[in-house]
Amino acid sequence: MQLKPLGKYVLKCPRCGYEVEPSPYIMRCPRCGELLDASIITEKIRIKWGELRGRGVWRYRDLLPELKNVITMSEGSTPLIRLRAYPNAYVKFEGANPTGSFKDRGMTVGVSLASSLGVRGIIVASTGNTAASAAAYSARAGIECMVVLPKGGVAKGKLGQALLHGARIVEVPGTFDNALEYVLSTVLESGSAGNASYYPLNSINQWRLEGQKTIAYEIVEEVGVPDYVFVPVGNGGNIYAIWKGFGELMELNIIDKMPKMIGVQASGAAPLVKYWRGLGEARVDKPSTVASAIRIGKPINWYRAYRAVKYSNGFFIDASDDEILMTQRVLGREGVGVEPASAASLAGYMKALREGVIDPSDNVVLIATGHALKDPDALLRDSVHTVSISSIDELKALIMGRSIIDV
Amino acid sequence: MQLKPLGKYVLKCPRCGYEVEPSPYIMRCPRCGELLDASIITEKIRIKWGELRGRGVWRYRDLLPELKNVITMSEGSTPLIRLRAYPNAYVKFEGANPTGSFKDRGMTVGVSLASSLGVRGIIVASTGNTAASAAAYSARAGIECMVVLPKGGVAKGKLGQALLHGARIVEVPGTFDNALEYVLSTVLESGSAGNASYYPLNSINQWRLEGQKTIAYEIVEEVGVPDYVFVPVGNGGNIYAIWKGFGELMELNIIDKMPKMIGVQASGAAPLVKYWRGLGEARVDKPSTVASAIRIGKPINWYRAYRAVKYSNGFFIDASDDEILMTQRVLGREGVGVEPASAASLAGYMKALREGVIDPSDNVVLIATGHALKDPDALLRDSVHTVSISSIDELKALIMGRSIIDV
Repeated sequence: MQLKPLGKYVLKCPRCGYEVEPSPYIMRCPRCGELLDASIITEKIRIKWGELRGRGVWRYRDLLPELKNVITMSEGSTPLIRLRAYPNAYVKFEGANPTGSFKDRGMTVGVSLASSLGVRGIIVASTGNTAASAAAYSARAGIECMVVLPKGGVAKGKLGQALLHGARIVEVPGTFDNALEYVLSTVLESGSAGNASYYPLNSINQWRLEGQKTIAYEIVEEVGVPDYVFVPVGNGGNIYAIWKGFGELMELNIIDKMPKMIGVQASGAAPLVKYWRGLGEARVDKPSTVASAIRIGKPINWYRAYRAVKYSNGFFIDASDDEILMTQRVLGREGVGVEPASAASLAGYMKALREGVIDPSDNVVLIATGHALKDPDALLRDSVHTVSISSIDELKALIMGRSIIDV
Repeated sequence: MQLKPLGKYVLKCPRCGYEVEPSPYIMRCPRCGELLDASIITEKIRIKWGELRGRGVWRYRDLLPELKNVITMSEGSTPLIRLRAYPNAYVKFEGANPTGSFKDRGMTVGVSLASSLGVRGIIVASTGNTAASAAAYSARAGIECMVVLPKGGVAKGKLGQALLHGARIVEVPGTFDNALEYVLSTVLESGSAGNASYYPLNSINQWRLEGQKTIAYEIVEEVGVPDYVFVPVGNGGNIYAIWKGFGELMELNIIDKMPKMIGVQASGAAPLVKYWRGLGEARVDKPSTVASAIRIGKPINWYRAYRAVKYSNGFFIDASDDEILMTQRVLGREGVGVEPASAASLAGYMKALREGVIDPSDNVVLIATGHALKDPDALLRDSVHTVSISSIDELKALIMGRSIIDV
């Protein structure tokens, strides 16, 4: 593959400043090892913001890699829903993507790249939404998908979508972190040798993040630049990608201010909150939360997430499992069905309001990362209250006489 | 509510020809009892097809009721995905709607109407996708949702979304048909008396079907008029709505031919296939199929579905549960994750091809009604085949050496 498809980019190390020609396989700084930024070269961008065409992620193709094969299922263009309970807050509902999470935005770019490279398949280490999306998009592309997992560590139920889409499951010894290490070490090594059969699409992959940054573009098109954007933080790639999206529009003079980026973690899995407060490294040993999509102790993109928050004058905040499950229901009562991890955004917003850190008059966007159907168990935690009636007359009395809210 | 919001319609009886002024509460012919068509009055329509704006269902507001309150979550604008295995077939993937099924298209119109009427809530008899959608949209509107169910007849798992969105569950004696009867008899009676608190949004409601007809509009905008449209048939409302949508574009001279409408039923729940073959009434007593969303023995819209198929020169066809589950996997391997009922479209298409009833060169659209995540059990029927490895070298051998398809 020639480099032209990535020609509008330069890979820059955010830590030591080293610059590298863009390549699908180079993800870390050859000098210091930090994850590289795929920076757009502003002079090479030709985009007319008022004349965009099409919908979804590829509406912004002028700001994305130019790939031979585009593997798409109309991901993106997700609903932006204003809350009744918080009239200055919008929810960006990523659950409406084809496989039910924001991961599809990244996978349409990542799998398009893999397909254009002509590899046999892609490889990811994931137990949940990433595996589902990777499997679906590689199926769409007609290439293989290998999902690497810790042996015996993953319940079958989390793999349903990946299996439906024909992914192959490979078990390795150790923890999830070991599985990720397996993927990165083997494939990147062989890839840079120019003979890889499988392209790695884990969340350090900067080209996947290019797809995810389109969340920012859609927000700007629909409501302009908000004061705050709340993002659930697991591995930390998404908050960085969204921040990067806003930043590019600044560089291109399409917007004239940046939103503050707020990273929300579950209290039992909050390595970045810990680091933000100066309490040591961005890692916790035994992450624990009901919000499985952000149950991560060692966020591989932690420095990316940290920079997004730091340079936008935002902050990190945590929410307890009780708060997360409660806000999942608050969103449900507004008509928005999300998985627990997504509810963390609103939980963080409500806490920030309570603590007076932000004002109710500030405009905010809350990123809801995945669909309620992703975690059916979480929907059934409450007991079901039913009203039992025995005749049509009784039903008539019920619907004519009084509100059933009180029944 | 004045009649102006429905002013572009007349209610027509397709059986006896009787005509009635449009009303939210009149659904059956006062003379013969047949379900009424909400026919647009062509002269009252002002639409410029080339200048439509916005996305989703309300992009076509010129062909929909004009309501004071529009309750929307960007439903519609669903992906149309060309199949690799059948290059003349597109799948219309309705699982990408906010609650994961095509029901959202109807509910945005139905709940907007209810909200504009100023009722306290809506009422439906449903165990699945309809209840989920009704609950979400009424939550969005800030009105109540009452779901009427047969006592003890519904598993909690099917109600997860409805509960998340705050629906109230009312149990009545008897079967599901009894539950529906309860809803219709009590509410329509009190509604026509002008004092109803709850608006009925079951699938006989013609205003809900107005939302669903937009599937046809989107197909026309994206690929023109196909030769065939395959639709899974349960209660029969959707195939009628889609046919109606094409028919309106004919009346308005926007298209110049109609597609043939093909109704697909599961073999164990195929009352319309039975009727089509002249084997008696359109009802079966104990419907049985894995495709729970079309497990219906007495389709309340059977005459509507029958007309759609008959007048478009289509046919009804059935598919066995084995065929349905197999085609669910075929779609999965193309990247499209659907619930079993949705796979019936492709199963019917494949059978029609095998039987030589249609030709591989014919252009077809297959309606996929709901998301794979709607039925997590169906995803886990297969056993999981995993490859277990014990070192990075082994993984390297695996990804470098040979296709893991054969492992």
